[in-house]
Amino acid sequence: MTIKAINARNQFQGTVKQIKRGDVVSEVEVDIGQGLITSIVSTTSVDELGLKPGSDVIALFKSTEVALASFAPA
Amino acid sequence: MTIKAINARNQFQGTVKQIKRGDVVSEVEVDIGQGLITSIVSTTSVDELGLKPGSDVIALFKSTEVALASFAPA
Amino acid sequence: MTIKAINARNQFQGTVKQIKRGDVVSEVEVDIGQGLITSIVSTTSVDELGLKPGSDVIALFKSTEVALASFAPA
Amino acid sequence: MTIKAINARNQFQGTVKQIKRGDVVSEVEVDIGQGLITSIVSTTSVDELGLKPGSDVIALFKSTEVALASFAPA
Amino acid sequence: MTIKAINARNQFQGTVKQIKRGDVVSEVEVDIGQGLITSIVSTTSVDELGLKPGSDVIALFKSTEVALASFAPA
Amino acid sequence: MTIKAINARNQFQGTVKQIKRGDVVSEVEVDIGQGLITSIVSTTSVDELGLKPGSDVIALFKSTEVALASFAPA
Repeated sequence: MTIKAINARNQFQGTVKQIKRGDVVSEVEVDIGQGLITSIVSTTSVDELGLKPGSDVIALFKSTEVALASFAPA
Repeated sequence: MTIKAINARNQFQGTVKQIKRGDVVSEVEVDIGQGLITSIVSTTSVDELGLKPGSDVIALFKSTEVALASFAPA
Repeated sequence: MTIKAINARNQFQGTVKQIKRGDVVSEVEVDIGQGLITSIVSTTSVDELGLKPGSDVIALFKSTEVALASFAPA
Repeated sequence: MTIKAINARNQFQGTVKQIKRGDVVSEVEVDIGQGLITSIVSTTSVDELGLKPGSDVIALFKSTEVALASFAPA
Repeated sequence: MTIKAINARNQFQGTVKQIKRGDVVSEVEVDIGQGLITSIVSTTSVDELGLKPGSDVIALFKSTEVALASFAPA
Repeated sequence: MTIKAINARNQFQGTVKQIKRGDVVSEVEVDIGQGLITSIVSTTSVDELGLKPGSDVIALFKSTEVALASFAPA
């Protein structure tokens, strides 16, 4: 079974830059070209997906998780 | 009171491209240069932040919200 | 590009039972055999995925989103 | 069946102050004494719980959803 | 004080299958009959709820956290 | 660049009471006067924000993350 399309509006293709491996969860930094997206996933998932630096991945998140802020120039 | 720094690792500066305004929540598309980030926030927040197309904003989300997927070339 | 695998540990295959369509977000009930999973996604996503009653879908969510409760018999 | 305890660390007892009712989701303001907590839940849930201004409720959320920010005095 | 009803639409009763205990968070697998739901909660919560393999629990999550995907047969 | 305003409706100012430091994520208890808010953030964020007991922080979370429950007196 292969996922064809997912409703998460926000999907960014990138490359794993580094993984900080923990006992239960791990922090994965994904280089998406314009910057880094950091993801915290279960260490079990890191192993199941076979993630390591250089792996191609998609970082995805739901629109409801995204907050917006206005800002002032430094 | 001004927020100096926030722990959300994932922060992308961009410009509001369009807003689909709803009764309780609204969908805001933010152009971050490399692509679009879509955010669903309360319509009250849209008004309080004074968001409209062209507004400068930061889209931010916690690392725990980001899922990772591996993929096959089309 | 096709997603091969995703780190969301919780994936349930089911059939769309009904859709309550809203202006910005819609509520989708998915029958997974043992019960119903309700999902609120953007109405844009409902259209892009072509969801309607009877559609086959996977409902998925991250482990970090799941709370646990103990309970007393009624 | 009655829930005895739930792992959501953050639980605040309060009173519904007002409800902004939408087609699919509604915005519920809960007065917790020290301030307001705003919750967006499905309108179906508002009806099932019988929420109206004055209702006693518990607002709860998982620790993984809470971001932290440092700030500068105004 | 006992919770009578909670707005989380998605509630599945099950039995703890195993717990992978970490320093701050733990991964709890819940057998809901039709499959497994994995939850990552604070280790403090695991202890407060007294969770161990065989414990009866309810796994619950908000509708806004559930993503939907279409798929192709393998 | 300084964040002026953020759409997270729920913002509570408080003081860090204690930090349970983990390898990848840490649990931070924030005393907001009326009670405690617990946050799980990456340990990297704890260090970048320079959090320690006594630090002034704002705990913030999106309305979509807040569940509501009705309850019965004990």
